Amino acid sequence: MIDLVEALRFSNEVADDAGRVALRHFRKPLAVELKADETPVTLVDREIEALVRTRIAHSYPEHGIFGEEEAPTNIENSFVWVIDPIDGTKSFVTGHPLFGGLMALLQDGEPCLGQIDMPATGERWSGVSGGQSTLNGAPCTTSDCRDLASAYVYTTDPMLFAGSKQVVFQMLKEKARLLRFGGDCYNYALLASGFCDLVVETGLEPYDFLPVVQVVRGAGGVITDWNGNSLGLGSSGDVLAAATPELHTQLLEKLQTSQATEAA
Amino acid sequence: MIDLVEALRFSNEVADDAGRVALRHFRKPLAVELKADETPVTLVDREIEALVRTRIAHSYPEHGIFGEEEAPTNIENSFVWVIDPIDGTKSFVTGHPLFGGLMALLQDGEPCLGQIDMPATGERWSGVSGGQSTLNGAPCTTSDCRDLASAYVYTTDPMLFAGSKQVVFQMLKEKARLLRFGGDCYNYALLASGFCDLVVETGLEPYDFLPVVQVVRGAGGVITDWNGNSLGLGSSGDVLAAATPELHTQLLEKLQTSQATEAA
Repeated sequence: MIDLVEALRFSNEVADDAGRVALRHFRKPLAVELKADETPVTLVDREIEALVRTRIAHSYPEHGIFGEEEAPTNIENSFVWVIDPIDGTKSFVTGHPLFGGLMALLQDGEPCLGQIDMPATGERWSGVSGGQSTLNGAPCTTSDCRDLASAYVYTTDPMLFAGSKQVVFQMLKEKARLLRFGGDCYNYALLASGFCDLVVETGLEPYDFLPVVQVVRGAGGVITDWNGNSLGLGSSGDVLAAATPELHTQLLEKLQTSQATEAA
Repeated sequence: MIDLVEALRFSNEVADDAGRVALRHFRKPLAVELKADETPVTLVDREIEALVRTRIAHSYPEHGIFGEEEAPTNIENSFVWVIDPIDGTKSFVTGHPLFGGLMALLQDGEPCLGQIDMPATGERWSGVSGGQSTLNGAPCTTSDCRDLASAYVYTTDPMLFAGSKQVVFQMLKEKARLLRFGGDCYNYALLASGFCDLVVETGLEPYDFLPVVQVVRGAGGVITDWNGNSLGLGSSGDVLAAATPELHTQLLEKLQTSQATEAA
């Protein structure tokens, strides 16, 4: 058992500290700390992940940790924290404010807490099992969009739809009301607030998508892989997040159909 | 003759007013004002463009106006204002904060003042002929990047590189240090502040690119069409903006070479 209210209070404190570190480095030269083979963001990533790991080890010493920068620890424990110190690396290194800090807590492999923190815009989305998701403490809900033809759709990078997945991208481009690129974790945040209706991504890592799961679900959305399976540490990295169950079901069918047609 | 200091003071006042209108509608339902065949953003666009036109007509009654929403007026005058009430339509309608308001003043067809205003982030880049460009009043300069291999590159939508232009996109994807999508007018703003190094776009309209010209130039950058020609009301909509003259020259050559290879 875990007190999720307490865990959320904890993750808010950690996000406050992590965000301060990110903003200290944002739009600043990092030459002094730079090794020959490293990008600045790697160093900031590492500094933030080390900070978060220290805080978790202090407050929840038995819990596992799965992060982007260091090897997993204790992930056989029932509770595992999943952290992405800076999601939106390309944004961060180009002075673009839409980078985020991500945290999830998994219980027996299933996300029960998620947080999307955007230090540069001062926005933080949070969700815990059994509760309504929030943006800066105020409840947020997904839109009531049920049809791709009326959906605002986000995907970060069309180039990731390679090989047999190109047909999926083409389907989105042809059928969606609007398709916008870029965004990373912010796309799920916009979905949770009802500003966009669908996010389709491929090639993600568990620390990219597990922290957004409870934010989307707690706002009324549905998020799975492209086959409709729950997302976990072993998921493929193909993510489908929809504002409503109806839109999610429609997209699952379209994903199957377009890929089957391509394969035939 | 025109007093550019006075013109900049004027455009700052107009941007203040225009930004307030944009933020009043941002992330808000617009159903009451919506006609059956119109998107909300069209109405906001029109409201802002009408406001800006009224202000120009009051302060500079002889000047021409070229905007996105209404027919051009007086554009035979030596001085023509070019306005885009909301650049980044896809962002605005999906609650994404990186939409901008753009204004340029042309003298005999050549931009002598430019402004990129981002109401939701509170950032405003300005540039006038003969002066240093500024971000919120503080001087800004482009990076010293001289080579595509070390360049952070932005382009809004890879899908716009259609037909024979696909080879240009492929060249950028293969040769650039980093290629990021999305952004619209914000890409030139990041360039002017030295955060990214190169912006390559195609399919733009004069109100998309003329307002950014003096911001880029006054920060030390070079901006032309893909053939190295100055940008004006009659330009093709292919835009190349680089942090340094060296990077600009290198890209002009690469653009010619890749397109010639494709045509052969």
